[in-house]
Amino acid sequence: MTSSKLSAVWSRLEGMAPSTLADLFANDSERVAKMSQRIEFEVPEYGTSGLLLDWSKTHLDDDLLDAFEELARAAGFDAARKSLFDGGIINPTEGRPATHGAMRGSGTDADVEEGMALLTRMGMLVDAIHDGALGEVKHLIHIGIGGSALGPDLAVDALTRDLKLVDVHVVSNIDGLALEQAFAACDPATTMIAVASKTFTTIETMTNAASALKWLNDNDVDDPSGRVVALTANPEKAVEWGVDETRVLPFPESVGGRYSLWSSIGFPVALAVGMDDFRAMLAGAQAIDTHFRETEGRANGPLLAAFGDQYYTRLRGCQTRAIFAYDERLALLPDYLQQLEMESNGKSVTASGDPVSGSTAPITWGGVGTDAQHAVFQLLHQGTQLVPVDFIASIAPGDELNPAHHKALLTNCFAQGAALMAGGNMSADGKDPARAFPGDRPSAMFLVDDLDAAMFGALIAFHEHRTFANAVLMGINPFDQFGVELGKKMAKDIEGGEGEFDASTAALMKAAGLG
Amino acid sequence: MTSSKLSAVWSRLEGMAPSTLADLFANDSERVAKMSQRIEFEVPEYGTSGLLLDWSKTHLDDDLLDAFEELARAAGFDAARKSLFDGGIINPTEGRPATHGAMRGSGTDADVEEGMALLTRMGMLVDAIHDGALGEVKHLIHIGIGGSALGPDLAVDALTRDLKLVDVHVVSNIDGLALEQAFAACDPATTMIAVASKTFTTIETMTNAASALKWLNDNDVDDPSGRVVALTANPEKAVEWGVDETRVLPFPESVGGRYSLWSSIGFPVALAVGMDDFRAMLAGAQAIDTHFRETEGRANGPLLAAFGDQYYTRLRGCQTRAIFAYDERLALLPDYLQQLEMESNGKSVTASGDPVSGSTAPITWGGVGTDAQHAVFQLLHQGTQLVPVDFIASIAPGDELNPAHHKALLTNCFAQGAALMAGGNMSADGKDPARAFPGDRPSAMFLVDDLDAAMFGALIAFHEHRTFANAVLMGINPFDQFGVELGKKMAKDIEGGEGEFDASTAALMKAAGLG
Repeated sequence: MTSSKLSAVWSRLEGMAPSTLADLFANDSERVAKMSQRIEFEVPEYGTSGLLLDWSKTHLDDDLLDAFEELARAAGFDAARKSLFDGGIINPTEGRPATHGAMRGSGTDADVEEGMALLTRMGMLVDAIHDGALGEVKHLIHIGIGGSALGPDLAVDALTRDLKLVDVHVVSNIDGLALEQAFAACDPATTMIAVASKTFTTIETMTNAASALKWLNDNDVDDPSGRVVALTANPEKAVEWGVDETRVLPFPESVGGRYSLWSSIGFPVALAVGMDDFRAMLAGAQAIDTHFRETEGRANGPLLAAFGDQYYTRLRGCQTRAIFAYDERLALLPDYLQQLEMESNGKSVTASGDPVSGSTAPITWGGVGTDAQHAVFQLLHQGTQLVPVDFIASIAPGDELNPAHHKALLTNCFAQGAALMAGGNMSADGKDPARAFPGDRPSAMFLVDDLDAAMFGALIAFHEHRTFANAVLMGINPFDQFGVELGKKMAKDIEGGEGEFDASTAALMKAAGLG
Repeated sequence: MTSSKLSAVWSRLEGMAPSTLADLFANDSERVAKMSQRIEFEVPEYGTSGLLLDWSKTHLDDDLLDAFEELARAAGFDAARKSLFDGGIINPTEGRPATHGAMRGSGTDADVEEGMALLTRMGMLVDAIHDGALGEVKHLIHIGIGGSALGPDLAVDALTRDLKLVDVHVVSNIDGLALEQAFAACDPATTMIAVASKTFTTIETMTNAASALKWLNDNDVDDPSGRVVALTANPEKAVEWGVDETRVLPFPESVGGRYSLWSSIGFPVALAVGMDDFRAMLAGAQAIDTHFRETEGRANGPLLAAFGDQYYTRLRGCQTRAIFAYDERLALLPDYLQQLEMESNGKSVTASGDPVSGSTAPITWGGVGTDAQHAVFQLLHQGTQLVPVDFIASIAPGDELNPAHHKALLTNCFAQGAALMAGGNMSADGKDPARAFPGDRPSAMFLVDDLDAAMFGALIAFHEHRTFANAVLMGINPFDQFGVELGKKMAKDIEGGEGEFDASTAALMKAAGLG
């Protein structure tokens, strides 16, 4: 990629006068068909799953898309994508490939073979636990933080509304209240502990793991260490810590924390939903891998999404993007995507160390509809900030109550997108400025036929690739996270009584008795 | 207020060259003392509570504060504040005062008298339920949305870690999964239902209430309506719906939804923590009312906080502000503040209908420390967006585990603020751009002695007044929320098969079988 080519395309993009959504619809009767896409895939024994994507209520149009496709070419998108799946060193600052795709069957033969072997190994342990080989297991306290917590927490919450083979509690915070809350909900005699840490040195996780082991001990559980499973890319360290090798489930170093749901970090998910559903989740994700690998230009869903992200962030100055899941099962999705997107692309330099020209990752935020309508939609409709919104909903209901519930849920979801775009004035004479809605506010829709395990995997993989595509368009390495290092170091310095601190930090330490 | 005076102050503010945090500290050895404040208050039988506020790691300095104090004068802050507590029509678009303060003892004599009478009435019902007058009550399903849900949910979560007199489940979403989840956790024979709706017509709440009543019926509970309590500003409607007058707990029309935790909307909190703690929460809030009423200029904590908000939003172009609670008990605080701030001040026009010059409310977002360090702090440290951060922590631990947990929690909190400000380079030679931290990123600290009910009330009231102060500085009416009306109307139109929709919305309705 040459940066002069890139700047030329950006100049072209910046020179395009934005149309209003109303004009875009008025001037193109085929707009909805052009800007919508149905992605279908089949998972054996699950049947066909469908995902309808509608980008028509965003400001993207043919001219912008032509230019963004040129940007993708100038940024070397094809080569980067090939490198991702071919095991290239796509994470150059850490000198590593990114092989999370291989954990679900997408990657080099060798990587996929390793992924499938690890999956088989995990499956044997999961099945053995379900079969009672480790005694009665009713609860799992899963201890991990960041990438070792957000994926399992989201997936368990999303996929266990009907059936939960084991009751899973994800504990991440070093605040002891988090662990105490899990203890209160579990019977130590029937509880297993999963310790999830890529390095097996994460301070929060190892502190919580020690306290969890003590809790088993204090409650007279026989052989507390025998109740522990380790999920890690550093199996030696786990064995050293006291976990028997038979209960260490490794994953490759080249699987990044925030991309690790598909690896043994997914153990609590597999334990809660069973291996069949876990494999369906992987298959759904793999279907999106295939779509992403094989589809060119704007027809590529995750790439098109990234075009929209770049448009709003770089050309419209939006510092945020919002996701509203109109489905309780996806209540934790905004938190998950926050990490995925902000930790991956919240950088200031390109993979080669040059400053990025313009804004990088926006702040990802959001919530659950219809709740959010009664909380933050005021600002979306009438505030001064422009926020591109994604809606996600399922045609099939997740509940079995009166169908009025699900009908109202979907109706509200569609109405919000319509209202954001249309605007208007809600006063009797149409003139009260307090009741005026400017409209022309964009939203995209993800409408799935049904939110089963396969579709869930597809949605997550879609966003992984969307994040990757954004990174490529900006020239960023999305697979490192050096931004977390300085705070870690300073915490160690404070803990060890080392280093000099600013006067404010010194005063706070003193006030808290840590001085 | 005259808008020419206001624009003159804004011009002065815009003309000030920003100093770096490093310079501000280097040039003023008294900075921490000057920019810190301890607010103390006493609640009978609770003793003294203390809250340390430290704004020194923000870019505010004496010159900026002088100018912001002038802005407050030009915006008529004193008169607006007086009007708030004197029952003036501070909500002009709805022609109403805002009397939530009176629910905790701050307001006109008549309003306070009414508030205390309503509190006594609620207390009698709460005590009667605790005494078994309505049979065994182990669970409460509290049904409400927005302002009728976020406050109760936060307060119950924050204040019941030690003791929970009744197990409370807050259900807000119309998605039937939300209610089904509560059903699964409750025994119908010992469950009460609270229906919380200011108007008693909110579609989500009334749909959920009907389904909850059906659930009691389906499970052969005697007299299901006898298990329902109504919390509303429209008691006639509640009686009409079938709730006996003795179990209708009213609150005044002049208490806004997002300010209603102090009124009968707080019933689930009182039921879970008992009336003594509920009254302590009110007393803590009232202590902040007194501070806010009686303190001038920058010494007024909520007003100073609003100066910081205005500085970052209007002068530094920040579209967001972030809150990280280093305490599991405040995990829901960011969601609560999102509504409080974004629904109050996410507007485009002043109270008199003129366009606001410049940005209004930023997007409030955040999370829990230390979790957030492993998810979104990458962007805060190395991204291109400037985000002013608030940290909140408690010196006294909430947990009883190994003190290493709480020590690490506080250490990490302080280290993050220090690192955001200091910056640096984490590579061996100090030159790797991927490991460079620009620093000069601001944060404020709220450090409480202990997070009991009184302090919890104080923190919430602080943010109510901060929101009010921001509104006054911008000339906005923070007490209406017309921005939610258009989406509601369009949802009704879709439901009723009325109205014309854009081609995208029509296609989505058809795809979902609603067409």
